[in-house]
Amino acid sequence: MYKINENYQKLPGSYLFSNIAKKVNAFSAANPEKKIIRLGIGDVTQPLAPAVIEAMHGAVDEMAHAETFRGYAPDLGYDFLRSAIADGDYRARGCEISEDEIFVSDGAKSDSGNIQEIFAQDNRIAVCDPVYPVYVDSNVMAGRTGTYDAAAGMWSDVIYMPCTMANNFVPEFPKETPDLIYLCLPNNPTGTTITRTQLQEWVDYANRVGAVIIYDAAYEAYISEENVAHSIYECEGAKSCAIELRSFSKNAGFTGVRLGFTVVPKELKCGDVSLNAMWARRHGTKFNGAPYIVQRAGEAVYSEAGRAQLSEQVAYYMRNAKLIKEGLSDAGYTVFGGVNAPYIWLKTPEGMTSWDFFDYLLANANVVGTPGSGFGPSGEGYFRLTAFGSLENTKAALERIKNL
Amino acid sequence: MYKINENYQKLPGSYLFSNIAKKVNAFSAANPEKKIIRLGIGDVTQPLAPAVIEAMHGAVDEMAHAETFRGYAPDLGYDFLRSAIADGDYRARGCEISEDEIFVSDGAKSDSGNIQEIFAQDNRIAVCDPVYPVYVDSNVMAGRTGTYDAAAGMWSDVIYMPCTMANNFVPEFPKETPDLIYLCLPNNPTGTTITRTQLQEWVDYANRVGAVIIYDAAYEAYISEENVAHSIYECEGAKSCAIELRSFSKNAGFTGVRLGFTVVPKELKCGDVSLNAMWARRHGTKFNGAPYIVQRAGEAVYSEAGRAQLSEQVAYYMRNAKLIKEGLSDAGYTVFGGVNAPYIWLKTPEGMTSWDFFDYLLANANVVGTPGSGFGPSGEGYFRLTAFGSLENTKAALERIKNL
Repeated sequence: MYKINENYQKLPGSYLFSNIAKKVNAFSAANPEKKIIRLGIGDVTQPLAPAVIEAMHGAVDEMAHAETFRGYAPDLGYDFLRSAIADGDYRARGCEISEDEIFVSDGAKSDSGNIQEIFAQDNRIAVCDPVYPVYVDSNVMAGRTGTYDAAAGMWSDVIYMPCTMANNFVPEFPKETPDLIYLCLPNNPTGTTITRTQLQEWVDYANRVGAVIIYDAAYEAYISEENVAHSIYECEGAKSCAIELRSFSKNAGFTGVRLGFTVVPKELKCGDVSLNAMWARRHGTKFNGAPYIVQRAGEAVYSEAGRAQLSEQVAYYMRNAKLIKEGLSDAGYTVFGGVNAPYIWLKTPEGMTSWDFFDYLLANANVVGTPGSGFGPSGEGYFRLTAFGSLENTKAALERIKNL
Repeated sequence: MYKINENYQKLPGSYLFSNIAKKVNAFSAANPEKKIIRLGIGDVTQPLAPAVIEAMHGAVDEMAHAETFRGYAPDLGYDFLRSAIADGDYRARGCEISEDEIFVSDGAKSDSGNIQEIFAQDNRIAVCDPVYPVYVDSNVMAGRTGTYDAAAGMWSDVIYMPCTMANNFVPEFPKETPDLIYLCLPNNPTGTTITRTQLQEWVDYANRVGAVIIYDAAYEAYISEENVAHSIYECEGAKSCAIELRSFSKNAGFTGVRLGFTVVPKELKCGDVSLNAMWARRHGTKFNGAPYIVQRAGEAVYSEAGRAQLSEQVAYYMRNAKLIKEGLSDAGYTVFGGVNAPYIWLKTPEGMTSWDFFDYLLANANVVGTPGSGFGPSGEGYFRLTAFGSLENTKAALERIKNL
């Protein structure tokens, strides 16, 4: 008789966004006249850039004719895209990353869930708290996290690195030594980040203790400050200890287009074993390449027109972030993030829990955000708002919050 | 110090297609005047159907405007596609499969590699021999296959079910009881299949011994005989023992578009645990939905125009299959498949090994096929040709082979 992977049974329910939806639906049903503004989920709202649209139409047309039709893509990505990435994201910043260190995928969520597979089951992971849930959940499924303490919201074998006002949201080296360290910078959900110098300290630490940093840089396009690294490979020694995950979702609005990539440097070795070769094998066995049309869309992101249009788009969202941040500050809130990231992380007022504040904001301002406690125990007492709404909605939401 | 997943080190090199490429390149270099015809890799060559192209252009246009832009797709697939699949592939054939038993993905290769994750590590797998390599390799990576005997080309903990002329390519119930049974029908690489009655016996067997059948039906569109099931759910009792993998690659030429789906019936339970719920959790954690544009393309496959155009396309390839099959038979070869599948599986003449025949065909007919031994030890002495070439190339290749 077959048996299931019992680790799945350990996963607590994933109720954050479904609870939000339930509460919003109940409120809407009771107050059909109220116009709700959603600044909760981290999805973008602006349409794809014209350069991207043009590239996709062109690629669709190619697929319509036998002479230009494309079947199976190379598992690891088309050369035209890997080379645009190597030039645009790395060489342009002085990072020596070559095409064959870049693995094109259907998005950073898949990569961040799958990357743990190439590591041993008894490796210890360290995560920031609060954190994007996929890092932990994918390790739970792999049996790497021990037992769950529901009251604390924590796993026995996970090393948590609290990021709160107390440490200015900068994770500290943990007491126990981790094998894999997940860092998402600029951070989701807190919208904060660390300086290049601080990141260098993490790289040095990882090299010293023999850990691998899984560096999720999905929000790098939102960095506005000079002393913040866009890639971990700006730090010396990172190629021997870091894997970088990148996304087209937030810099180019590809949340529904699906494209990302992972960088696994050839210098990253466990003894004689190349992690680059392992990831290539994983990709080649369990993945069949990103769609040709989508890879052409990705290429357009690096074109001159694409760059110009998308820097406008990022600026649009960052104007929202600035509005929210300044508006909330003026209204007396303690607010973080929003400078190098499209998220605003606010301290709930008067000791309210994250869910109390959610209810309060929904009932009184008809604005939906995300309770910080949904991202981990150290998120309790915080609340996330996103800058991904329309300018109009953002302004309206802010007006309502100010008038509370 | 971190450690790697040592199971990856057990994987033998994947040399089949790279060896083919090396030999072809060497021959080309030595004989630049010869025109090589490739009937090796199972990739399609015909362009996408006009209905699909139209749907994709339409979806791209939607992504260009804020009012119709689509961000994150539902993890499990858009309702419009799940409902087209439930109607078109299941209800139309009398199978009661509902929308929420269908999980849309980026292709059957991903699903066939990932599906093993929801099962326990000590489950025993059974595979046909010869076999599509992903089933075994993904289980090797998970540590489920024991040790590799390089001379035999077999894993100690895998149950092999030889499919050869001796049993008419119909897998027999193995002596040892498996937990997971991979069946690809119509079969890649042999191009053969089994009758609905024979499949019913497998379903009854799986229910009797408590095994799950992972049923890969990627080639179902090529079925021409009445007594062959298009879905395993045409068999009674299949919903309590079978997961079905489906692809848009071969029925609609989506090898470079990337779309597939997996059916996990709600009746499929291990004790109280629903495998449907487990797969939903896996999908929701490690996958972020197939692209909107691609899902609209998938929907068009089920439209009236799409169906008509694609049945033409399948007929085109099957004319090639018939030509190859009849032509080779006339030339004295012993030939299988090609009736319910786009693959022709031939016995190598005069006791040649699969690679001997590869070399012979390349040197004398300048035709590239795939050595059967590349798919497993029982493939030795066989050779695969595909019907996915153009009619012109297929005819030319056949003429050359006949004239040998």
